[in-house]
Amino acid sequence: MFYNIKITIAYSGVHFAGWQRQSSKRTVQGEIENALSNLFRQDIKIDGAGRTDAGVHAYGQVATFNVDTTMPFDRFYTLINRRMPEDISITDVEIVDNSFHARYSSKAKRYAYKIYHGVNKNPIYSDFYLYNKQKLNVDVMKLAANFLIGKKDFKSFMASGSSIKNTIREIYSIDFFEDNEFLTIEFYGDGFLYNMVRIMVGLMLDVESGKIKLKDILQIIESKDRNLLKNTARANGLYLMEVYY
Amino acid sequence: MFYNIKITIAYSGVHFAGWQRQSSKRTVQGEIENALSNLFRQDIKIDGAGRTDAGVHAYGQVATFNVDTTMPFDRFYTLINRRMPEDISITDVEIVDNSFHARYSSKAKRYAYKIYHGVNKNPIYSDFYLYNKQKLNVDVMKLAANFLIGKKDFKSFMASGSSIKNTIREIYSIDFFEDNEFLTIEFYGDGFLYNMVRIMVGLMLDVESGKIKLKDILQIIESKDRNLLKNTARANGLYLMEVYY
Repeated sequence: MFYNIKITIAYSGVHFAGWQRQSSKRTVQGEIENALSNLFRQDIKIDGAGRTDAGVHAYGQVATFNVDTTMPFDRFYTLINRRMPEDISITDVEIVDNSFHARYSSKAKRYAYKIYHGVNKNPIYSDFYLYNKQKLNVDVMKLAANFLIGKKDFKSFMASGSSIKNTIREIYSIDFFEDNEFLTIEFYGDGFLYNMVRIMVGLMLDVESGKIKLKDILQIIESKDRNLLKNTARANGLYLMEVYY
Repeated sequence: MFYNIKITIAYSGVHFAGWQRQSSKRTVQGEIENALSNLFRQDIKIDGAGRTDAGVHAYGQVATFNVDTTMPFDRFYTLINRRMPEDISITDVEIVDNSFHARYSSKAKRYAYKIYHGVNKNPIYSDFYLYNKQKLNVDVMKLAANFLIGKKDFKSFMASGSSIKNTIREIYSIDFFEDNEFLTIEFYGDGFLYNMVRIMVGLMLDVESGKIKLKDILQIIESKDRNLLKNTARANGLYLMEVYY
């Protein structure tokens, strides 16, 4: 039977050199492709919805792959998970139309960025949060976030070196969740440029600390000049939460 | 001024090759010694209360060091912490008697071992828990733990290769804390042999799964034979919580 399979994936980014397969480094794509190729005894390539960087975590990464096998589909979930390392979990397996593609079919994505701004550093979870020494004025960050919502050319929010031509994206919402000294900022939009979430968080932090003025944000967006946004918040606070189709 | 200083240390074990200084690997002792030597502009050596392995975390590791400096003591806490990496935090700094030594003066220690036994693997926190695929029967583990409490020769619970002669230790208590699918087991005793907590947890898990029978535990202890205890629970679930003086 020929299948086009969609898998949903959770992983800790701590011990991976990112999503994308590399010949000599441990990557999420590489681990999953090796496991699938081994299981189905054929060379399996997977397409991921987003290429997360080293240190970035995922609760809802999505990938698709083709396989021609006599193995019954109802065994896939268990047998794939049995071959996953501790830091990767396949949370869902579905048969999808042959035209479905994890990246090209995606309609929207949701990312979370986590910040810990307690008085005492919590080193135990340093791989899972950005630590901000000072208590943050979250209200100021919300004001900055308001400038980023909507359909805009986000060219100044794209890591230099990226070759994407169309830099227009729509941010549907940016939500703030506060739990004592933990702050989670969720970004929901039709797509995100390379490093875009981390640069948006960097902007909010720079506005909060006074390095960038609220009134200058519109001009920074319109300038399309990456050099005006120097703060790319560290990868470890970023989580790919969900991909929408 | 000459000081004998006691520091209390929290760290994530994820990116360390353990506590003990090694020439070519990143270790907790190495990072702290480098920072202190740099701060006080002299060669500082620290003595830790316990040598944690690679992957083991600490909320309350303790170390002592000597320093002769004109720097006022009330600046130590801030200046030392400023030189700590993200994954180490100095939570307390005290001046102690010259005779005080982190290891030799310690009267007792408390370790925690964390297990996640949910239906779905949680890969995000795989560096911070032992994941057990099956829901654990914690009551059986408690019965096994009861055999370990008291003053005993724990030779069979010492990693082979350790050269310690006196293998008698007293375990004051083993407490179980359950929070939904998270289980924390706390071990409080006058001292612990190399890998002893992890081997005790391995025994409990083997009793829970039926590999070892409850009625055989006493005999295993009395045999002083390490080969009867093959399961050393993984390092990542272990936390040095507190050292008592």
